[in-house]
Amino acid sequence: MTLEKNDKLILITNDDGLYAAGLRTLLEVIEEFGKVVLISTMESMSGMSQALTVKTPLRVKLLEENEKHRIYACNGTPTDSVKLAVNQLLERKPDWVVSGINHGANASVSVLYSGTMAAAIEGCLYGINSVGFSLNNFSPTADFSICKKYIRIVMKRLASNSLPVGVCLNVNIPSAPKNEIKGIVVCRQAKGNWKEEFEKRKDPMGKTYYWLTGLFQNHEPDATDTDEWAISNKYVSIVPVTVDMTAHWFINDLKKWFKK
Amino acid sequence: MTLEKNDKLILITNDDGLYAAGLRTLLEVIEEFGKVVLISTMESMSGMSQALTVKTPLRVKLLEENEKHRIYACNGTPTDSVKLAVNQLLERKPDWVVSGINHGANASVSVLYSGTMAAAIEGCLYGINSVGFSLNNFSPTADFSICKKYIRIVMKRLASNSLPVGVCLNVNIPSAPKNEIKGIVVCRQAKGNWKEEFEKRKDPMGKTYYWLTGLFQNHEPDATDTDEWAISNKYVSIVPVTVDMTAHWFINDLKKWFKK
Repeated sequence: MTLEKNDKLILITNDDGLYAAGLRTLLEVIEEFGKVVLISTMESMSGMSQALTVKTPLRVKLLEENEKHRIYACNGTPTDSVKLAVNQLLERKPDWVVSGINHGANASVSVLYSGTMAAAIEGCLYGINSVGFSLNNFSPTADFSICKKYIRIVMKRLASNSLPVGVCLNVNIPSAPKNEIKGIVVCRQAKGNWKEEFEKRKDPMGKTYYWLTGLFQNHEPDATDTDEWAISNKYVSIVPVTVDMTAHWFINDLKKWFKK
Repeated sequence: MTLEKNDKLILITNDDGLYAAGLRTLLEVIEEFGKVVLISTMESMSGMSQALTVKTPLRVKLLEENEKHRIYACNGTPTDSVKLAVNQLLERKPDWVVSGINHGANASVSVLYSGTMAAAIEGCLYGINSVGFSLNNFSPTADFSICKKYIRIVMKRLASNSLPVGVCLNVNIPSAPKNEIKGIVVCRQAKGNWKEEFEKRKDPMGKTYYWLTGLFQNHEPDATDTDEWAISNKYVSIVPVTVDMTAHWFINDLKKWFKK
C-alpha cells in the first residue's frame, strides 16, 4: 500500500474478530474514502470497554496488504489496537479512526461497556476524528448492507466538517429493511441500565459457576430525544460522545458538601 | 455476619488484587460505617476499565466471614464483581459501593481506563451511592494510612447527603506526608491524554512483541480547577463523574451537519 500525500489514511477496528461480517462491511465502505489499515483480534472480544493489556506483551501480525488496505491481527483489546496502530504501525497519524460495524447496538449506557466505542474514544483522545458504528442486530446472519448508505453519509459529513476536541460519534443503525429506515437523528444517550440475571449452573465437579446475562432497561421510555427512542423507531441515532465524564452541573452543589 | 435492619451494607472492591494494601486499608476504614462485603480477584487486574466477562464463566469463593465483614474472591473484572455481588451474593441492595484505594491516581482521562472507577460507575448505574478512591503513588511500599482521614470525611458527607442519579465520586489523594496535604478540592476532570511509548522487544524465538507504557500529558497545565492541578498541589481532588457521556453542548451544531 503506497500512501500519497493527498490520500486519507483511515484506521479501522472493532471487537467482533477479524472475520466478523460487520468489520468486513465497514472495510468495503471505508475504502471508498482513502487508504485503510485494519487491525483486530482474530477472535471476538465483546464487552472489553476501554480495557488495556498491561500484564501480557502485545503481538501483531501483518496478514494482508494490497493497494487499498493493510490488515493486521493483534492479540490486544480494541483500545490496545488503536494505541499500537497509531504509535507503531501507521505511516502517520490517521485522519480518521472508524470502529464497527458492531454486531449489536451500543446505545444508552452500553457506550460504557462497548469495545467498539472504546476504540473510537481512544482515537478521539489522540485528537483524531473518530466514529463508532453499530447495528442493532446480534444475529450471525444480520444484514449489514443496510448500514452502507448511512456510513457513507456520516463519513462525507465528517470529511467536510471537523469534530470538536474530545468528542467522537456513536452511530447506531436500526435493524429494519432498507426502505423502512426513516433517516438520521442526532440525539442524546438515553438514561438506563442493565438488569442482570445471572445464570447459575453446576459444573461436572459439582461447583457453582455463573454466566453473565442481562436485559437493558430504558429509564425514560417516553423521551423522544434519546438514542433508544431513535433506533426503536427505525431512525439511525447519532450521539456526540465526550471523553469528559465530569458532571459539571453538580460541581457547585458538591462544593457545599465540603464547606465548613 | 448478621445484618441488622439499621446496619449499612457496604460493598467494597478494587482492581489491585485481594491482598493489595490499598484495599486492606479501605476495608479497615469502611468497617467503621457498617457491615462490609469485599469482593476482588486474587491477582491484580489494572486497566480493565468497564470490561465484562462474557466468554468465561464467573466463579466466586467465600474466603472469610466474621461479624464485621465477608470476603469473596472472584475471577471476574471489577465490573463483573459488582454485578455478581449486587445480584447474587448480597442480602440486599448495598447502601454504598466503595472502590479502592487504588495504587496510582485515576485523575483526568484515566477515569476511562480505570477498573477502580468502573466499579464505582457500575454501582452508580444500579442507583447506589458510589465512590472510588485512589492514591497518587504506584510504589509497593506506598503509605496508604494518609488516605484514612479523607475517606472518613467523604463517607461522612455521603452519609448525610445523597448523590444525584447517575453521578458517582472520583477521589484522588496526593502522595505527600500527612501534614502537607492542604485539604479537599471539588473540581473537574483535566483535559489530557496518554502519550504511548511502546517498548518493542524480541522474544528468544526472534519474534517481536510490545509492552504498553505511557506518559500522561496534561493539556491544560495552567488551569487551577482540575483534578490534575489539585493533586499536584497536594490537595485531595473530588470529581463528580456522570455516566452520561453525551456532549450535550454539541448536539445543536451536530444537527446542522445533517440538515438538508
